[in-house]
Amino acid sequence: MNHTKNSSVLLDKAVEEFSQLPGIGKQTALRLALHLLKKGESTMTRFGQTFIEMGTNIQKCKICQNISDTEVCSICSDSERDIKTICIVENIRDVLSIENTNQFSGRYHVLGGTISPMDGIGPSDLEIDTLISRVQNEPIQEIILALSTTMEGDTTNFFLFKKLNQYDIKISVLARGVSVGDELYYTDTVTLGKSIANRATFDPSF
Amino acid sequence: MNHTKNSSVLLDKAVEEFSQLPGIGKQTALRLALHLLKKGESTMTRFGQTFIEMGTNIQKCKICQNISDTEVCSICSDSERDIKTICIVENIRDVLSIENTNQFSGRYHVLGGTISPMDGIGPSDLEIDTLISRVQNEPIQEIILALSTTMEGDTTNFFLFKKLNQYDIKISVLARGVSVGDELYYTDTVTLGKSIANRATFDPSF
Repeated sequence: MNHTKNSSVLLDKAVEEFSQLPGIGKQTALRLALHLLKKGESTMTRFGQTFIEMGTNIQKCKICQNISDTEVCSICSDSERDIKTICIVENIRDVLSIENTNQFSGRYHVLGGTISPMDGIGPSDLEIDTLISRVQNEPIQEIILALSTTMEGDTTNFFLFKKLNQYDIKISVLARGVSVGDELYYTDTVTLGKSIANRATFDPSF
Repeated sequence: MNHTKNSSVLLDKAVEEFSQLPGIGKQTALRLALHLLKKGESTMTRFGQTFIEMGTNIQKCKICQNISDTEVCSICSDSERDIKTICIVENIRDVLSIENTNQFSGRYHVLGGTISPMDGIGPSDLEIDTLISRVQNEPIQEIILALSTTMEGDTTNFFLFKKLNQYDIKISVLARGVSVGDELYYTDTVTLGKSIANRATFDPSF
């Protein structure tokens, strides 16, 4: 079915808004809009209000550049967290991913991407100056590079290493190795090679 | 990845709203919310405003019960359309589907569903009284039953036929037959039987 105009411009506009989201076509957009319509006015108002509030009130944490409802995000303002370790990630989704592991208790720094000349993203487009200023002003002892294991990620890692190397800070990077649950046969040669070179002492408790 | 709390309650609320829509899980909801977040404040405000306006201003057309921005919908208020023919459909999506065919120039009546005792939907839950009142007050000559070809649709067709039969109105139903593009081999027996019984004169122009 081709999508033509509805009898309601208001519905058309709602369909239009939904269909501008990634992965949502006209038909799905219509289904979503009709779902909301069926739920009634209070649901639609609450739905709309949520996004207006998000647009108006959300901001970047002035310390780690993660999104936040307040000037300083909940992670940076948590006094229980280790302020001596910073984990550098590309974006706010990566913060979530690492938080979900429950293996990191330090703070983050959200770069906002990786250096990618192909996409026109240079070091000045990333939150590198704010990182350097943190290194100069906070009692940081270790920086963990947790960027993607792509060419862009590696380039950015190298750039950051050159910038940070002059400070007396340990610079580490996420371990590369065989994924948990993977069969060796399907692991690529580079990963398998790194996992042999960086082999660790067997720990039966882990 | 399991979804834990974000560093922003505002983002969490947006994710929550998206994930209550049909077919959208937590991960997709997060992706959609982050997409909006990236687009900036004005996009988020416009997005939210659209749904608030829809909730506040959308109404049912007082003639055909289709959704409308005004008291009478654009189809019912279109003086070019044939007011002597009414097409009865289940819901507003069906209005769209029939409009897309460009084969119908009359007006509609949106029932709001079909009689379905299993789901607790009886005749009084549908827009049948409003239909009868239209039949009594409008110069209607033909009513086309365009409900689903399910047991519930057939039950509703029969119920409507009994109700409408006392008026001097032609009552017709959508043709049942082989779908355009279908191979005979895959057409079910009942449909094929109907298509033979209701065979039409061959029209080379159609």
